[in-house]
Amino acid sequence: MSDTPVQKIAVLGAGSWGTTFAKVMADAVTTGSEAVEISLWARRPEIAEEIATRHTNSTYLGETVLPEAITATSSLTEAVEAADVVVLAVPAQHLRSHLGQLADVLAPHAVLVSLIKGLERGTDMRMSEVIAAELGLEPSRIAVVSGPNLAMEIAREEPTASVVACEGEQTAELIAGLCNNSYFRPYTNTDVVGVEIAGIVKNVIALAVGICDGQNLGDNSKASVITRGLAETTRLATVLGGRLETFSGLAGLGDLVATCASPLSRNRSAGRLLGEGLNTAQVTEQLTQTAEGMKSGSAVLELARRNGVEMPISEAVVAVLNGSLDVDTIASLLLARDLKAEGK
Amino acid sequence: MSDTPVQKIAVLGAGSWGTTFAKVMADAVTTGSEAVEISLWARRPEIAEEIATRHTNSTYLGETVLPEAITATSSLTEAVEAADVVVLAVPAQHLRSHLGQLADVLAPHAVLVSLIKGLERGTDMRMSEVIAAELGLEPSRIAVVSGPNLAMEIAREEPTASVVACEGEQTAELIAGLCNNSYFRPYTNTDVVGVEIAGIVKNVIALAVGICDGQNLGDNSKASVITRGLAETTRLATVLGGRLETFSGLAGLGDLVATCASPLSRNRSAGRLLGEGLNTAQVTEQLTQTAEGMKSGSAVLELARRNGVEMPISEAVVAVLNGSLDVDTIASLLLARDLKAEGK
Repeated sequence: MSDTPVQKIAVLGAGSWGTTFAKVMADAVTTGSEAVEISLWARRPEIAEEIATRHTNSTYLGETVLPEAITATSSLTEAVEAADVVVLAVPAQHLRSHLGQLADVLAPHAVLVSLIKGLERGTDMRMSEVIAAELGLEPSRIAVVSGPNLAMEIAREEPTASVVACEGEQTAELIAGLCNNSYFRPYTNTDVVGVEIAGIVKNVIALAVGICDGQNLGDNSKASVITRGLAETTRLATVLGGRLETFSGLAGLGDLVATCASPLSRNRSAGRLLGEGLNTAQVTEQLTQTAEGMKSGSAVLELARRNGVEMPISEAVVAVLNGSLDVDTIASLLLARDLKAEGK
Repeated sequence: MSDTPVQKIAVLGAGSWGTTFAKVMADAVTTGSEAVEISLWARRPEIAEEIATRHTNSTYLGETVLPEAITATSSLTEAVEAADVVVLAVPAQHLRSHLGQLADVLAPHAVLVSLIKGLERGTDMRMSEVIAAELGLEPSRIAVVSGPNLAMEIAREEPTASVVACEGEQTAELIAGLCNNSYFRPYTNTDVVGVEIAGIVKNVIALAVGICDGQNLGDNSKASVITRGLAETTRLATVLGGRLETFSGLAGLGDLVATCASPLSRNRSAGRLLGEGLNTAQVTEQLTQTAEGMKSGSAVLELARRNGVEMPISEAVVAVLNGSLDVDTIASLLLARDLKAEGK
C-alpha cells in the first residue's frame, strides 16, 4: 500500500454483487476531490460492452444506471493493470485460477479485497487464505467485505451498513473510505477469520430457515434456528481464531438476518423446496443452479469435526441434503439438545 | 422453594401469552408421573367460565383446545392459594397492584415467574424488581421467561426455544422442567437483568423496524437496524449488570428476530403506521391500543441517559413518537454514526 491517493480500482466479476459494489465505490469516491477510475471486468464481452456503452447491466441489475466513473472491459489484464485496489467478486471455486492470471500485472502496492463467500473445495481454505497463498501477499494487504448486503437493495440505494475487515487497520480504513457513501455505511474490523466464517456458514443456516418455511413453521421456530445457528457458527469460528463480537455484528447477525428475511435469497429458496420434500437433485434442477450452502455444507461440517465443534443445525441440513434424514423429522431435531444452560 | 414436587401452579392473566404458557406447562407436566393442577386466573368472569367449561379462550386463542390440567377462576385468591409456583402475565403497569392482593395468600415457599416485558412507569423498575420490592422475596425465588415466543405459534405447537432466567440456578432448572415439552425448549440462564432489558428494548427496536417497513426500506436496512439496535440494547444492559452473551441468545437476538419478522407483532405494526406518516395519536386510534414500545420508549431513553449510554436508534424512534423528528428523515439517521470500528 502506497501513500499516494487511490487512482484506479479494479473490480473482477460483473455479477449482481460485483457490479453493485462498483457502483457503491463510484458513488463514494466521486464525492471526493480526486477522480478515481473504477474498471469493472466482465467475463462475457457482451456484458462489458453493455456497461461501457449503456451504463447498465440488465442481466443482473435491471435498469439501474451505473455512474460514469465505472468503465468496463472483458480483458482481465486491462482491468488490473495499474490498479491500486483489486476487488474480487468471482465464484469461490474459480478464484484461484483468476489469481493465477493477474499475478503478472498486479501493481506491487495493490490491496486485494474479497467480496466472496465460500470455502475452496478440496482444500477447505477461506478466500483470504487462497489469495495469500496464490499471490504471496501479507495479511495487511488483503481485506474482506461482508454484511447485510442484498445486492438489489443496495443498487436501489436503500441504506445499509457493512463490515470491512483486514488484519491491518490502516488498510481496513482505506477500503472503508472508498465505499462510504450516503446509503452504504462501512464499519472496520480486524477479525478476518470471523467475518469469513460468518459469511460461509450463514448460507447453511439460511437453508435450515428455508426448510422451516417449507415445513410451514412460524417465526418463533425460524428465530430459534437463526439464534442457535449463529451460536454454532460462533463456536466454530472462535475455535479457528475468530472473535465473539464479530458474530453479534453486521457480518454475523446482520448478514444472517438479512439473508433469512429475504425472499431474494437463493439459499433460503433452496431450503424451502427441500422442506417441501424435494431432494437435492430436484432442487438444483428447479433453481437451475446450486445454492452456495448446498455446496459448502459438507465442507463446513468437515471443518467442524476436525476441530471438535458440535454443529447440530448444520448436521441436520447436510443429512437432508445427503438424503440420510427425512425432512419431516427435522423440526424437533433442529431444536433438540438436552435441557441445559444457554451458551453451553 | 421446598423439596416436595410441584402440585399446583397459578397463572395470573388469561391473555394470549398467559393462556398459552399455561398450556405449555400443562403439556409439560402431564407427561410426568405426578398430577399437577394449573389454575388460570382471568380478570373477566366470562373468560374464566369459558376456559373452565369449554376448554377454550376464543378471545385470545381462537379454537385452540386447552389441556384438562388447566382449571380457571376469576378469583385471584383461589388461583394463588397453595400454589407452589405463581406465573405473572398481567399488564406491566398493573403488576404492583396485583402483587398487593396476593401477598396474604401466597404460600411461604412459592416461586414467582414473570412473563411480563416492560418497565414500571414513574419508577423505571424492571418487573423482577417490582416483585422483589412488593413481596420482599429473595432473587432466588423470582424467575423470568423470555424468548422468541409469539403466543399464537406456540398455541399451534410450532417448535420454539426460550430462556428461563433466575439468579438461583436450581429455581431456573425447576421452572425449565415445568415448561419443557415437545414444542417448547427452555434453556436456563442466571442473567435476569440482561433477559429483562432485552425484552423491554426489543419493542422499541421493533418500532424502528416497522418504521423502515412504512418507509419501504428493504431487508438490508432492517437487518442493519436489528443489528445496531441489539448493540445499543447490549450497551445499556451491560452497564446495568447484564451479560454480553445473553444478547446473542434466545432472549436477546431470538426474541428480537421473531418480533421483527412477524406480521403479528403489535410494535412492528405500530412502527409501520408511523413510517407511513401517521402521528402517535393516529396510530393509537387505528390499533385501538398503544403498543408497548410506544409506552416504554421514553423510559428506556431516561435509563440510558442516566447511565451515560448512547442509543441512537431508540432516540430516533422516541423523537418520531414525540413529533420532534420528521419520519422521512429517519432512514439515514438510523444508520448515522461516524466511520468507526465495529463495536466501538
